[in-house]
Amino acid sequence: MEFNLASGLEILERTPAVIRSMLSNLSPEWLDGTEGPDTWSPYVIVGHLIHGERTDWIPRARIILAQGEDRCFKPFDRFAQFRESEGKSLAQLLDEFATLRSENLAILDGWKLTEHELGLEGVHPEFGPVTMRQLLATWVAHDLGHIAQTARVMAKQYREAVGPWRAYLPVMDR
Amino acid sequence: MEFNLASGLEILERTPAVIRSMLSNLSPEWLDGTEGPDTWSPYVIVGHLIHGERTDWIPRARIILAQGEDRCFKPFDRFAQFRESEGKSLAQLLDEFATLRSENLAILDGWKLTEHELGLEGVHPEFGPVTMRQLLATWVAHDLGHIAQTARVMAKQYREAVGPWRAYLPVMDR
Repeated sequence: MEFNLASGLEILERTPAVIRSMLSNLSPEWLDGTEGPDTWSPYVIVGHLIHGERTDWIPRARIILAQGEDRCFKPFDRFAQFRESEGKSLAQLLDEFATLRSENLAILDGWKLTEHELGLEGVHPEFGPVTMRQLLATWVAHDLGHIAQTARVMAKQYREAVGPWRAYLPVMDR
Repeated sequence: MEFNLASGLEILERTPAVIRSMLSNLSPEWLDGTEGPDTWSPYVIVGHLIHGERTDWIPRARIILAQGEDRCFKPFDRFAQFRESEGKSLAQLLDEFATLRSENLAILDGWKLTEHELGLEGVHPEFGPVTMRQLLATWVAHDLGHIAQTARVMAKQYREAVGPWRAYLPVMDR
C-alpha cells in the first residue's frame, strides 16, 4: 500500500481515541505492567507518543518543507517521557496527546501538501535523505506500532494466568 | 499478574469499543490488508472474535460450571468467520460483536463466580484439564492479542512506504 495523505489521516486522526478507549480508567496493574526490565508500560508509551507530537513529526516536516540549507533532523529522544510524564496522571497524558495531535493535524491540513512537496527531502541523522512522504507514513506506522505494543504488553500480564493456552497465544512470546 | 474477575472484566468490557475506535469507517485498503497469504485482515479478525462469543468462552464456561460427566470442550473452529461474515459489512460485524459481548458478560455477571468455581476444571481437547480461571484469563488475553494483531496488520500495509525507517519499526517484522 502506498502512502497517501487521505488514508494516512484516517489513522492519525483516530489514534488518541483508540489509546483512550484502550487505557482510560484501567487499574494500575494494567497501566504499569511491562514486558520485563527496560521495556515500556502502557503509561510510558503514552508519554512517548506525546513527545513525538512535540519534537518529531511536525518539526521534521517543517524542516523538509522549508528546504533550507541545513535539512538535518535533530535526533529524537526515546527516553524523554520518563522526565516529562513525571507526576502526571494517565488522564492528563491522554488529554495532552489528544490536544497536541489535533493541533498538529490542523497544521498539516493547513499546508495542503502537493505531490511535489510530498517528494521533498530532509536528512535523517542516521539514514540520510528521506522524503516527506516517508516521514508521514512513519508517523502513521509509529502510531499503529505503539497501539500493537500497548495491547501486547497488557496481554503478557496474563502469560502465566492462561496456563496451557499460552501455546495458542503467539502474542505472549512476540 | 494473577487473574481476577474484576481486572479481567476491565478488558473484556472495553474490547468492542476499542475495536470500533480502531476500525469504524476506515477505507477498504486498511480493513482488507493482510500480512501475506493465509493471514488475517482486520475484517476477518472481527468475525473471528464474534465466533468466539458464540461458541467458545461462555459455552466452555458452562461446561465447566455444570461439572457433568463429559467435561470435554468442542474444538474451536478457527476458520468459521470466512463463512459466517459473508455478505456482512464491517459496521454490522462491529454491532454484532458488541451485542454478543455484552450478552455474554451479563451471563458471566449473573453467575457470581466464587473462588471455588474459578478453580473448577473442564477438559480441553488438546491440553487436557484446564480451570475456569485459565479459561477466563485466556478470553482476556485473546482479546488483547487480536487488538495487537489488528494494529500490526495495519502497520504492515506501510512496510514499503516508510522507507529506511523500517529499521526503527520492529512491528514491521514481527
